[in-house]
Amino acid sequence: MPLHPLDLDLPKHVDAALAGYLADRRSLGERMEANFTGAVDALADFVLGGGKRIRPTFAWWGWRAAGGDPECAQAEAVLTAVSSLELIQACALVHDDLMDASETRRGRPTVHVEFARRHREQGWLGEPARFGLAAAVLIGDVALAWADDMLFAAGLPTDALQRLSLPWRDMRTEMLAGQYLDVLTQVRGDASADAALRIDRLKTAAYTVERPLHMGAAIGGGSPELIDGLRAFGTDIGVAFQLRDDLLGVFGDPTVTGKPAGDDLREGKRTLLVALGIERGADVLEHALGRPDLDVATVDEVRARLVEVGAVAAVEERITELTESALRALDRAPVAEPAGDRLAELAVSATRRTY
Amino acid sequence: MPLHPLDLDLPKHVDAALAGYLADRRSLGERMEANFTGAVDALADFVLGGGKRIRPTFAWWGWRAAGGDPECAQAEAVLTAVSSLELIQACALVHDDLMDASETRRGRPTVHVEFARRHREQGWLGEPARFGLAAAVLIGDVALAWADDMLFAAGLPTDALQRLSLPWRDMRTEMLAGQYLDVLTQVRGDASADAALRIDRLKTAAYTVERPLHMGAAIGGGSPELIDGLRAFGTDIGVAFQLRDDLLGVFGDPTVTGKPAGDDLREGKRTLLVALGIERGADVLEHALGRPDLDVATVDEVRARLVEVGAVAAVEERITELTESALRALDRAPVAEPAGDRLAELAVSATRRTY
Repeated sequence: MPLHPLDLDLPKHVDAALAGYLADRRSLGERMEANFTGAVDALADFVLGGGKRIRPTFAWWGWRAAGGDPECAQAEAVLTAVSSLELIQACALVHDDLMDASETRRGRPTVHVEFARRHREQGWLGEPARFGLAAAVLIGDVALAWADDMLFAAGLPTDALQRLSLPWRDMRTEMLAGQYLDVLTQVRGDASADAALRIDRLKTAAYTVERPLHMGAAIGGGSPELIDGLRAFGTDIGVAFQLRDDLLGVFGDPTVTGKPAGDDLREGKRTLLVALGIERGADVLEHALGRPDLDVATVDEVRARLVEVGAVAAVEERITELTESALRALDRAPVAEPAGDRLAELAVSATRRTY
Repeated sequence: MPLHPLDLDLPKHVDAALAGYLADRRSLGERMEANFTGAVDALADFVLGGGKRIRPTFAWWGWRAAGGDPECAQAEAVLTAVSSLELIQACALVHDDLMDASETRRGRPTVHVEFARRHREQGWLGEPARFGLAAAVLIGDVALAWADDMLFAAGLPTDALQRLSLPWRDMRTEMLAGQYLDVLTQVRGDASADAALRIDRLKTAAYTVERPLHMGAAIGGGSPELIDGLRAFGTDIGVAFQLRDDLLGVFGDPTVTGKPAGDDLREGKRTLLVALGIERGADVLEHALGRPDLDVATVDEVRARLVEVGAVAAVEERITELTESALRALDRAPVAEPAGDRLAELAVSATRRTY
């Protein structure tokens, strides 16, 4: 079955929905308080400045899997509803960057860094970093509140909204529970494979793939069999996707990933790859993890050890197994075409080796 | 018209609705990730540990003003819906305490301080303050997301939810715009009466009184005349309420307000009282504002000067005018009893002198 133009240009349509919504909210915000537009514009720059629109894409294909027709009158509302996921993601990233004290994202200053810069530039009172913190907290909050508003105002029929409420509710809590567990795991120095996998399940599998698919299928009124199948697919693909990301964080080509080589090591990320490396005796890892000044030679040494002890092969194997079990679950589910084919393609491309 | 038992014991019923909802979400959170309960319990302690339930109270009376009957089958759902406002407030306070670096709230450590303490106690890795920041950001986010979930799952009919969506949407944005303006006004050192009043309108009038009333009336299907009247009442009473709070922050008895005498001066709060004091030449204010080490003698001097230059009298006069205009708006609105009487009482008690 051929793809529809909306299917083919999904990220572009998501961008347009977000741009339209944010422009509308800007006018509303400006009527409330002219100074607020400084915050709204920063949020719009952030949201429209990049991102692969992966969550809206999975939600869209969840809807298509339930037989959603891009030619039907409801398609526009579905597009708006799935685009609202990008506002939740904006909250997650802006707050995450603040919590991690990250300086840059997508090659630009993070929100708290940018507002601290404005503070310094204007010679305002108090500490620039404190103003940056406040702006990032509030801009993230605005994004989280507006995600709900955008979903509710998308124009979906009330029965669809009703069906949506469960995955929408659980997804946001899973995301936040995952973030909390991530922070807790870091400070506890818990380098176990178990902790890494639990974070992957909440932060990536549930929040990024499983629940968006669930939401889309719920909008389309999908059967329990379809929803179960998509969720099983989403959980496995989501974890596999994260494991691929973990490998890229250590082995990826900076010109492809957009991040300096070995940056995940410098940040001290506790991934399954790292957990298996430590378990199998790659002692150099303990020394390298979380050191901002980590040099290229040590990064290379870590890479070599991760290969030697078999951690890389073990993660690759896990990715393969998860991708296969995901594709089996997809195969068994009563998925409407062309969603089955497209989801299988997405699964493979998201977990494929690119280094 | 006599008051119903629900009217009389409203804060108790709000507490029960919140406790029930949070217990339910705790089970759900625990199934997702056992460690997450540490964050959920901190949120529940915060929400159930105090607060006057002022927003749910106004929302309840907005519903009663539209003829809502506490004996009807929908009353329980309305109670749950109005209680969700306390979760928005929990987000606002937890994030505000973090942004202001406040150490205590209601006589207990603030959330970021408490989580930093846990970090130190456990001897975890990294900086305690950084962990406290992350926990406070995430717990506030959880509260904001759950406010929506609680409202949506309250059991209101879909037409009521539809009518609610506008005040609910605008209220959250007004709160966040007010917080942002507050932060911006502080760092700019903008001590104007205009800025102080704009913050009061967004943060207190709209968010605390006007929109909760609007929400309640929308649930009850109130007429445009009723909603306009309640909003006019709410805007004026809300500002008057804030002005009273500003006076109490400087002149209040610590045994009544629960805050050290002159604490608003130490925090450097830019209120209308302060703006008028500076405008009228109370120079000691400039020297006293925002000094954490401010002594009692200087607080007394500031108080005396604020009285001398007539700033206190001007604020008192403004409170009286606003209360009168609010009561006139209430009088003209088609308010069902006993809501009219009760709202008039609330207006007077919220703006009455208690020092």
